Amino acid sequence: MKKLIGIGVGPGDPELITVKAVNAIQNCAYVFVPKNKGDSLAGNIAAPYLKDKPLLELAFPMGEDNAQRYIQAAKTINETLNSEETGVFLTLGDPLTYSTFAYLRQEVIGLGIEVSVIPGITSYHAAAAVLGEAITLRDEAFYLADGNVEEEVLTFVDSVCILKPLKNMETLLDRLEKHDFHYVYVKRCGQKGETILKERNLILQETDYLSLILAKRN
Amino acid sequence: MKKLIGIGVGPGDPELITVKAVNAIQNCAYVFVPKNKGDSLAGNIAAPYLKDKPLLELAFPMGEDNAQRYIQAAKTINETLNSEETGVFLTLGDPLTYSTFAYLRQEVIGLGIEVSVIPGITSYHAAAAVLGEAITLRDEAFYLADGNVEEEVLTFVDSVCILKPLKNMETLLDRLEKHDFHYVYVKRCGQKGETILKERNLILQETDYLSLILAKRN
Repeated sequence: MKKLIGIGVGPGDPELITVKAVNAIQNCAYVFVPKNKGDSLAGNIAAPYLKDKPLLELAFPMGEDNAQRYIQAAKTINETLNSEETGVFLTLGDPLTYSTFAYLRQEVIGLGIEVSVIPGITSYHAAAAVLGEAITLRDEAFYLADGNVEEEVLTFVDSVCILKPLKNMETLLDRLEKHDFHYVYVKRCGQKGETILKERNLILQETDYLSLILAKRN
Repeated sequence: MKKLIGIGVGPGDPELITVKAVNAIQNCAYVFVPKNKGDSLAGNIAAPYLKDKPLLELAFPMGEDNAQRYIQAAKTINETLNSEETGVFLTLGDPLTYSTFAYLRQEVIGLGIEVSVIPGITSYHAAAAVLGEAITLRDEAFYLADGNVEEEVLTFVDSVCILKPLKNMETLLDRLEKHDFHYVYVKRCGQKGETILKERNLILQETDYLSLILAKRN
């Protein structure tokens, strides 16, 4: 049976990949690398571990609807792998947290390929580590969303992470302030261009897609 | 300056530790290992990487209030490390997600030790990987708590993880069913005794503290 392993390469620092992911890369027949407009963040992060492995690039522009691309990518993976071969598919962060892989997975399974997942460090765990602030202490609750926070939820949780907040930054910060949360903006955590901002005015000037807001109740 | 690095060793599988954590262990002067009633899960998970490193065990019974223990442990760490030496402190999962380390950290900083964190794979990321179900797809929101879920939150999120649900299992499952979530019980993910259950009756017979419920809207 053909096998595909979805691998989380972590948020940016090449060392924040798991030993299991490195071993899977080294033992596989092919490494499938998602590309976004000619560039692959996941591929760059995993570069120190790829050595002379056969690579195959698959186009997945970020933030676009890729239904047809998932079908095409699954077909390519199926045609590339020989019977009993294992491929790995690299994903930024964790393969089951806002990842292309969750969609691709369905298509690949549909073609009779066995799929498994090796989890990866998420950007919000890495951001919390850089800041040194706990995501959750005992009896606390945490909320994760992309785009914006549902204001009603802020009554019930102690910490919040909003990924890709760019389009809604002003209303997001308004809601957090109103409900007495302090926040920090983290851009490209562990990658080139890492930026950490706490001042509202500076945050609102930012334009990077790969950013997050981490917030905690005062 | 003395330094302490809080290291997440991941949820159970020794390979689910990061390369960065392994390197930090190999480069440190001392490894501090939390013990719970004579046993150390974090120490067991990291065992393949500890080799002949000097170990120092610190007692932290799980689920107890350890205010005095944190102060004592910080004092021990301070007395153990020589000037300019770096120690690592091992934690199960991630050091900033429901971890003893978040409390210890404050005490250690108070003694003038520089503290940093290497994030780890959480139990809920590992559980999602075992199940192969996405924690979040695009535009979905996720809620994480320990003990039980706030029922009102279920209106606003698409997936939920409740850690250590043992005491509230019946009301938790009631709330999830009422709000049309399917769920799975995962015990000791990636460890000896790993158990995955989906039937309510079987879940309610379980008594293990190290378990979680992962749920997703139907």
